[in-house]
Amino acid sequence: MEPIGVIYTNHLEASGTPIQPTAARESLGKIIIHKELESGLKDLDGFSHIILLYFFDQVRQSKLLVTPFLDDIERGVFATRAPARPNPIGLSIVQLIKIEDNQITFSGADMLNNTPLLDIKPYVPSFDQQQVERIGWLENSVKRLSATSDDGRFLKD
Amino acid sequence: MEPIGVIYTNHLEASGTPIQPTAARESLGKIIIHKELESGLKDLDGFSHIILLYFFDQVRQSKLLVTPFLDDIERGVFATRAPARPNPIGLSIVQLIKIEDNQITFSGADMLNNTPLLDIKPYVPSFDQQQVERIGWLENSVKRLSATSDDGRFLKD
Repeated sequence: MEPIGVIYTNHLEASGTPIQPTAARESLGKIIIHKELESGLKDLDGFSHIILLYFFDQVRQSKLLVTPFLDDIERGVFATRAPARPNPIGLSIVQLIKIEDNQITFSGADMLNNTPLLDIKPYVPSFDQQQVERIGWLENSVKRLSATSDDGRFLKD
Repeated sequence: MEPIGVIYTNHLEASGTPIQPTAARESLGKIIIHKELESGLKDLDGFSHIILLYFFDQVRQSKLLVTPFLDDIERGVFATRAPARPNPIGLSIVQLIKIEDNQITFSGADMLNNTPLLDIKPYVPSFDQQQVERIGWLENSVKRLSATSDDGRFLKD
């Protein structure tokens, strides 16, 4: 896997970075796609939302049990969105603002500045919106989302 | 990146494989997570839906323009969910049926048998459901989803 480009945001360090795009609606980000891949962006401007898959390159841990930002109890890492995972791939669904040549502007930037981008996919409700019955440990804590931000806990070795 | 486990499905070849979980609701899949990662599954059984990130390991192409299954016009690959992408990572949101030790049963299996799994994340409406305005070229063709399946076009060299 090689990055297809870089995500630039105003989040220069982990502490204070929003933990999901829904808590970062006013936070703009810019993607610069490697010039030789630019033709792969054709038709993307028709979508209002896109899925970004990126590499948590600042995270130095891989843990199986983590205390997520929204909780104070250790949870299995695959039951969380914490970055300290065996394969440190991040996923954010963001709103597309505009595309100019190989530059994409979006809102909902919840990743660190200089994050390596792995993939962009169109966000499609028929594919990506499921009727959910249960959200486990997040049932009670998800309401704290907008009041919670990264505190750098996963950057330490 | 190393697989965290393997996804087993009834789809033994690309031809005829559903192209999204929403077109594969009755199709069961089983994941076997590497035994040493089993503790990372703690708490996952509280969620009704999970996000699977996996490796399109049978795809031999990386294209910037593709003709997706739902269209007959070439589109930029990043505006499609086609597997022939620079980083061949697949994303499916599936329904969790049960977890026993390191085995996960789910419905909505739209990937080939023996697919290497890269990550599991909990699916959370507050994070993953966005109010969409536009879905570009899919606006007219998404209605053909359940009548469309893979035809093996991305397996060829």
